[in-house]
Amino acid sequence: MRLIYSGKTKDVYEDGPYLIFHFKDTVLGREGREDSGGNEVIGEKEGKGSLVLKQTEFFFRLLERNGVKTHFVGRIDERKARFLKAERIPLEVIYRELAYGSFLRRYKGWAKPFQRLGIVEFTLKDDSLDDPLIAEEAITALGIAGREEVEEMKETTRKVARVLRDFLSSKGLQLVDFKLEFGRLDGELIVIDELSGDTMRVAKGNRILTREELSEVIG
Amino acid sequence: MRLIYSGKTKDVYEDGPYLIFHFKDTVLGREGREDSGGNEVIGEKEGKGSLVLKQTEFFFRLLERNGVKTHFVGRIDERKARFLKAERIPLEVIYRELAYGSFLRRYKGWAKPFQRLGIVEFTLKDDSLDDPLIAEEAITALGIAGREEVEEMKETTRKVARVLRDFLSSKGLQLVDFKLEFGRLDGELIVIDELSGDTMRVAKGNRILTREELSEVIG
Repeated sequence: MRLIYSGKTKDVYEDGPYLIFHFKDTVLGREGREDSGGNEVIGEKEGKGSLVLKQTEFFFRLLERNGVKTHFVGRIDERKARFLKAERIPLEVIYRELAYGSFLRRYKGWAKPFQRLGIVEFTLKDDSLDDPLIAEEAITALGIAGREEVEEMKETTRKVARVLRDFLSSKGLQLVDFKLEFGRLDGELIVIDELSGDTMRVAKGNRILTREELSEVIG
Repeated sequence: MRLIYSGKTKDVYEDGPYLIFHFKDTVLGREGREDSGGNEVIGEKEGKGSLVLKQTEFFFRLLERNGVKTHFVGRIDERKARFLKAERIPLEVIYRELAYGSFLRRYKGWAKPFQRLGIVEFTLKDDSLDDPLIAEEAITALGIAGREEVEEMKETTRKVARVLRDFLSSKGLQLVDFKLEFGRLDGELIVIDELSGDTMRVAKGNRILTREELSEVIG
């Protein structure tokens, strides 16, 4: 297996037509505090990598059962899993059911915490630029994705939102926000990367659940 | 006349159903250098206010002749003009024909100077937040403008782009980018604020024209 990418929260290996993700125990946050919207490494927590993998497996299987294609193939061990190798589109597609985190900071004074939004936003995935927001027209003008791909990513993201909202509300919880990444495989767009407490916020009343509390919910 | 707003480049007075704009000689820029994309006061230049008013009068009349409604009524003197009072929508609608300025900084490494874009972007007009980019869906979710208003602003902005592009190309020049503001009046959207070298970039070859050079063109 060849290491092709070493990221902040995972190492990615190439294995024939597959990718092997090795989930690390690194914890991300912002300004030194844990925050699923954060991008800086603030420490390590034993078992965190395995928790994120379990959550990703759970949520990707939930999506698949609801007709959303993902790149998840199967778990190898506590920290490693096999994924289909897709051509990664360098965007983060953010769904915001309720206003929180960077949205409140960006539009301070214009939005209230937990205000209903129900919107999709795109950011350009570039750490050195701090993942800037990008207009849909700019995505196509820069050749990052086609017009139809942008529409399809939005549609799939809204479908994922419905699936997550329904599952969470059956547990008495509320979806706050999540981010997805997409890749191209055999002429199709599929959901790639991960879907876990690291890329999703869930609330009970007006309190955001921790990664560990989210794991209890999905059992 | 009652002063209702004192901005960086103009004072605004209320006069019955009209607004009177008094254009100041303040020069805006960023990081201490003159830049039509900048937001900080970097100094004063005698005659600048009168130049901006002349350009605004010229371009707003050009728009009106081409079927785009603006709030311009008529000039009072060198530095003052009368405008219709509309309900201001707190957005800047940015048209980018070619990549330049903040677009290149925001997506450094992803776009080349003067690369063809032909896109519309929205920013929330809030100086304290540094006029952040805003997704179209966020505009409606925050109640800033309705879905149809967003579509109409985009359509009008593209029409303005065509008018400016045609005028400039007849002078051997290229439109680079410009920003518009919109207001509501009698159930209609009209173009408000100004349209001048302070809110528009024009290039000859790969060099951006100064405000003074732009004035020579429209002479």
